[in-house]
Amino acid sequence: MSDDISRKAVVLLSGGLDSATVLALAAASGARCYALTFDYGQRHRVELEAARRVAQALHAADHRVVSLDIGWMGGSALTDAAIPVPQELSAGIPVTYVPARNTVFLSIALGWAEVLGAADIYIGANAVDYSGYPDCRPEFIQAFERLANLATRAGIEGRGFRVHAPLMKLRKHEIIREGARLGVDYSLTLSCYDPDASGRACGRCDSCRLRAQGFAEAGVPDPTRCR
Amino acid sequence: MSDDISRKAVVLLSGGLDSATVLALAAASGARCYALTFDYGQRHRVELEAARRVAQALHAADHRVVSLDIGWMGGSALTDAAIPVPQELSAGIPVTYVPARNTVFLSIALGWAEVLGAADIYIGANAVDYSGYPDCRPEFIQAFERLANLATRAGIEGRGFRVHAPLMKLRKHEIIREGARLGVDYSLTLSCYDPDASGRACGRCDSCRLRAQGFAEAGVPDPTRCR
Repeated sequence: MSDDISRKAVVLLSGGLDSATVLALAAASGARCYALTFDYGQRHRVELEAARRVAQALHAADHRVVSLDIGWMGGSALTDAAIPVPQELSAGIPVTYVPARNTVFLSIALGWAEVLGAADIYIGANAVDYSGYPDCRPEFIQAFERLANLATRAGIEGRGFRVHAPLMKLRKHEIIREGARLGVDYSLTLSCYDPDASGRACGRCDSCRLRAQGFAEAGVPDPTRCR
Repeated sequence: MSDDISRKAVVLLSGGLDSATVLALAAASGARCYALTFDYGQRHRVELEAARRVAQALHAADHRVVSLDIGWMGGSALTDAAIPVPQELSAGIPVTYVPARNTVFLSIALGWAEVLGAADIYIGANAVDYSGYPDCRPEFIQAFERLANLATRAGIEGRGFRVHAPLMKLRKHEIIREGARLGVDYSLTLSCYDPDASGRACGRCDSCRLRAQGFAEAGVPDPTRCR
C-alpha cells in the first residue's frame, strides 16, 4: 500500500474475474489505474461490456478498448468459429490458446505505459488453473519485463518498467477471496468463453467450470448468470 | 541459401527501402515469405501502397495489412499531427520514435508465424543509421527471440523461433548495394516520413536525407520521386 497517489499503472482488463481482481489490487496499491481492453475478434465479445462496467466500478482513471485485427490469423477456438470451444478441461495446451496473445497485449500496454509515464503494468496471468498457456508462466512475465526495459526510451533511460502478475500462483478460490476482500462486485464480470448475446454464461466451458468451482471452494456466493 | 522450399518466414514490410531489402534477402534464402504490414495511423500511410507493390514484385506467398489502433496513444511525430516531423538528424532518441512499436509488430508477427508453422521472423531493424531507436538494437532483437520461445506453444514444444535482423550492422549504402544485387526495384519503395498524397517524398526529413545519401554513397541511381 503506497501513499504515492501520482503513481500510474496500466492494467490489462478483459472483463473476466481475474483481471477485475487485478485492477482492484492495483488500485489498492495506490496507483492511478489506466485500464486496457482488447477487441480481438473473440467470440465472447460481450466481455467488452463487462470490462466497461468493471473499469467504471473500480474508478479507473481511463479505460481504452483497442481493436486488434488478429482474428484473421485463426488458430484458436476463441477467434475461429470453425474450432469449437471445449466443454472439458484438457491436458496440455488448450485449443483456446490464442497464439502470442499476451505478448501482443503486453506490448501495447507497454507503449501506453511509456506515453503515460507509468512504470507499472499489471496482468492477470495465472499459472495454476490455466497452466497449459505458455504465456501465463512466470518465466514469460520475467522475459517480457526484461524486453520492456530494452525496448523503450524509458527503459534505457533508467526509468524501468515492472510487470506485475499478482495472481500467478493463486488458485481460483484464493483469487475470489482476495477480490471479495477488496469489494470487487463479481456480478459485473464475465468469464465464459461462449456466452449468449445478453452476457449469460454457458456454464459448461473450461472457464465456466473453473469459475463455478472457485466460488464454491471460496465459500463466496456465486453471482454468475447462466442461461 | 537453402533448398528447403517448404520453409516459411514472416517478414515485417513497411514499404520502405530497408524492409524491401529484407524481404528480398528472406526470399533469396529459399523461404516462402509471408509479408506483414501495419496501418498504425502513421502520417506516411501511402507507404502501405508501397508495401503492396513490393510484396507483389518480390513474390510474397501472402501479404497482410493489419490495422493497429495505437495512434490514439500519441507520443510520436509519426502518429501525432501535433508533433512536427524533424528536418534535421538529431542526437539521442528522435521524436519519430513510436513507443514499443517494434515490440508490437514482432508480437503480431510471432502470432502469425505460430499459426503458419513458420520458424523465421525477419525485421529490417538497423542500429547504425538509426541508433537512437531503442527497439532497433541487437540486444532488443535477442531479448524478443528469447521471449518468443517462452511465449508460444511452438517455442515450448521445441520448434523454436529465430528473429533475423540482417541489416542490423549495415550502413544505408551497403543495404542499397545488397538490394541492388538481389534485383530490388527501389522505385517501388517509399522512405519519407512526410510524403504527399501521391507518394512523393519531401526530401527533407531524417529518412529522406539518409536515403539520398545512401544512394549517392552506393553509386546506385536514386529512383526516389521528390515533390
